[in-house]
Amino acid sequence: MSNQIFSDAIWHRINQKTKPVGALGQLETVAHQLAMIQSEQLGDVVTKVKVNKPTVVVFAGDHGIADEGVSIAPSAVTQQMVLNFLAGGAAINCFCRVNDVALKVVDTGILLPVEQAHDDFVVQRLGDRTENFANQAAMTEQQVEEGLKLGKSLVSSIIHDGCNLIMFGEMGIGNTSSAAAILSALSKRKPADCVGRGTGISDEQWAKKVQLVEQGVSRCYGLSVTETLAQVGGFEIVQMVGGFLAAAENKTPVLVDGFIVTAAAYVAALINPACRDVMIFAHQSHETGHQYLLQELDAEPLLDLSLRLGEGTGAVLAMPLIRAAAEFYNNMASFEEAGVVVD
Amino acid sequence: MSNQIFSDAIWHRINQKTKPVGALGQLETVAHQLAMIQSEQLGDVVTKVKVNKPTVVVFAGDHGIADEGVSIAPSAVTQQMVLNFLAGGAAINCFCRVNDVALKVVDTGILLPVEQAHDDFVVQRLGDRTENFANQAAMTEQQVEEGLKLGKSLVSSIIHDGCNLIMFGEMGIGNTSSAAAILSALSKRKPADCVGRGTGISDEQWAKKVQLVEQGVSRCYGLSVTETLAQVGGFEIVQMVGGFLAAAENKTPVLVDGFIVTAAAYVAALINPACRDVMIFAHQSHETGHQYLLQELDAEPLLDLSLRLGEGTGAVLAMPLIRAAAEFYNNMASFEEAGVVVD
Repeated sequence: MSNQIFSDAIWHRINQKTKPVGALGQLETVAHQLAMIQSEQLGDVVTKVKVNKPTVVVFAGDHGIADEGVSIAPSAVTQQMVLNFLAGGAAINCFCRVNDVALKVVDTGILLPVEQAHDDFVVQRLGDRTENFANQAAMTEQQVEEGLKLGKSLVSSIIHDGCNLIMFGEMGIGNTSSAAAILSALSKRKPADCVGRGTGISDEQWAKKVQLVEQGVSRCYGLSVTETLAQVGGFEIVQMVGGFLAAAENKTPVLVDGFIVTAAAYVAALINPACRDVMIFAHQSHETGHQYLLQELDAEPLLDLSLRLGEGTGAVLAMPLIRAAAEFYNNMASFEEAGVVVD
Repeated sequence: MSNQIFSDAIWHRINQKTKPVGALGQLETVAHQLAMIQSEQLGDVVTKVKVNKPTVVVFAGDHGIADEGVSIAPSAVTQQMVLNFLAGGAAINCFCRVNDVALKVVDTGILLPVEQAHDDFVVQRLGDRTENFANQAAMTEQQVEEGLKLGKSLVSSIIHDGCNLIMFGEMGIGNTSSAAAILSALSKRKPADCVGRGTGISDEQWAKKVQLVEQGVSRCYGLSVTETLAQVGGFEIVQMVGGFLAAAENKTPVLVDGFIVTAAAYVAALINPACRDVMIFAHQSHETGHQYLLQELDAEPLLDLSLRLGEGTGAVLAMPLIRAAAEFYNNMASFEEAGVVVD
């Protein structure tokens, strides 16, 4: 069957539920998208959408640009926060607990490695941290290729273990600078329009951050997507891009977190436009560049809670809305089933 | 201890968590509010916020104004939807299931009574339905008093059974007209500014709805809050007002749904301003009058999902955010506990 036939059949099913047409707003769009993805996978219209083992993968990586003092915290904090994730004490752990989401933490290259074995900790380091992209390429093209491969293979294996809804989160002091540079370079927007306040910096730090991003972006004209990643990307961003590519190949929906993760989503969709079909957007960040990324991806997020933490918190907080959408699609009565006669 | 000492101690606790100050946005406000309410109840600053037996009470009532053809469905649908709630087939049932929220359904006066015994069904009818408020008072002042008493006593008993977070929902064909008239009469706003599209009506129906609301509101000048309820209120709205009064007396937070429930919240806060302290706002409705009600109550809802269904769906969908706020307040590590050093 064609996509259009699937799509019409799914909307018909949603519109027969005991509610005015469209009255469940964005949840209807989510239910439709989930049913489309799973119908295409099955080759037939699904009447039950399944949500199995939802998992958030938090990719941590450090950034040479952090040396420039454009963040509120030093690079050592990346490692300390990874330890906090493994001990269960961070915001992302709290939200995973209440929303029944599994957590994996990935060291993609943090300045101070963590010597702790843990079932949910994956070490796939591309280096100690990226180079300072204000002055030189953040990484080599070999590192980009390797990062894409590692991200893809990790996410594929999580999906093959039964997860059919995945989220990505990130931790990396300095990574809003990298995300802003990626957006600027690939969308041809001025750095000043793409650079925000991160987790909270002064006007002076912001002006410096814009200048540093300009330096990095100035080397990107005429480059391909992966060459741009090498110039101004981050290890965690590159591995997330690989994760999105794997999700698209496996027709697995991704609940997309805020600014940094959306930057990776944008890159992935440029590499393979089919990635867009599996993306559901969780949280509207107030970070300046995020709205531009959402425009590029034609996306409307579910939540707007003024979060500015990262870690995948926005995605995990939106997870119950996905379960609610699936439940109404699966089990809400139709007008006929309930004997409701509107006219 | 004074409120200010509680408040400062609670903010201090939140600000010590391993995140930049304010980075959890609206969840921090929710955590602070919950901790304030429970600290005042206990007489000491709580370090664990409890969420027990969250319950949504759906008040159903019919409206004489529905005869005027200002709704997309006839009054008989109110009864059919009550049966749907009791059978577990409605949207509110789906969302209660996934979010682990208990449901009670109350007949406050629906046109066609339901002859079905059900553990979660409460019958406390104020009549068959209200009179058509375009032409005469919707109910008597005795009915208002009785309705407030019944709503209060039901909600008090639910709280005494162990629920410490309550939600109200509503079902009643025609009740957006009543909510718009209440808002207009009590806030002195023009009816045309208060009247929206309900679950979806034409331009012509909207103009008629404005005119009908004007007729009702024209009888309200100089009346007290309860006299205004008698003129243009609804049985379900009056009982919800009683419910808010009971929640305030019992220092129990209420997660406030959309337009109709917020109209009841507004009335309750006019009767007893302490009601505002226990209100957390769940969903921003696109219904025109809702933003004015939120302005009057100085409220910023958690969600904006373009829902326009009622039933308490917005509140129950926001419930996981309350659990997330409680969990981070209770169990997220402080900088000291996690060994995170930001500067």
